[in-house]
Amino acid sequence: MKISEFQGLMRKLYFHRDSKRGAYGTFIWLLEEVAELGRALASGDRENLKDEFADVLAWLCSLANVLNIDLEEASLNKYPGKCPKCGKEKCSCPEA
Amino acid sequence: MKISEFQGLMRKLYFHRDSKRGAYGTFIWLLEEVAELGRALASGDRENLKDEFADVLAWLCSLANVLNIDLEEASLNKYPGKCPKCGKEKCSCPEA
Repeated sequence: MKISEFQGLMRKLYFHRDSKRGAYGTFIWLLEEVAELGRALASGDRENLKDEFADVLAWLCSLANVLNIDLEEASLNKYPGKCPKCGKEKCSCPEA
Repeated sequence: MKISEFQGLMRKLYFHRDSKRGAYGTFIWLLEEVAELGRALASGDRENLKDEFADVLAWLCSLANVLNIDLEEASLNKYPGKCPKCGKEKCSCPEA
C-alpha cells in the first residue's frame, strides 16, 4: 500500500477525532506510541513490536492529517533516492 | 510509493550504517527526530515541518530494517481498514 493510501486510511478512520484533538494533542499521542515502541524493543515480544511499529506510523499519519501534510510527498522530496546530506545512493556521511 | 518500497530505499541508503549502530542506537536517533518534529510544530516553519515528518518516517524505517520487520505488513495487519479496538471503519472508541 502506498504511504499516501495508508495516510488516507487513517484519515477515514480517525480524522473526526484527530481534528478535534488538534496538532499538539495528537503529537503527545505520537510520543506515547514511540515510548511503547521503545518498551516493546526491550521486551523481545516480536508480535507486540510489530504492533507498536504500526501504531507509530498510524499516529505519524494522524498528525500529518491534522496539519494537512502529505507524508509521502514530504518523504520523497527529502529522500529522492539519495542521502539528502552527502548526495550518495549509499550514504557516506561521517557518523554524528 | 509503497511503504515497503520506501523502507527498501532506506535500506539501500542506510542499512550499512544502521546495522552497525544496532536497534537501541537507531531508536535513540528516532527519538531525536521525533523531538525535532515537535520543535518544528512549534516553529510554524512548514517546509521544516515537512522535512521533519520525512525524517521520522525514515528513521522508523531504519529501525524496522535493523529489526527485520516489514513496516507495511505490520501496519496493514494492525489496521486492515477498521479500528483495531472498536472494529468500526470510522472509529467510535471512547477517547482515552
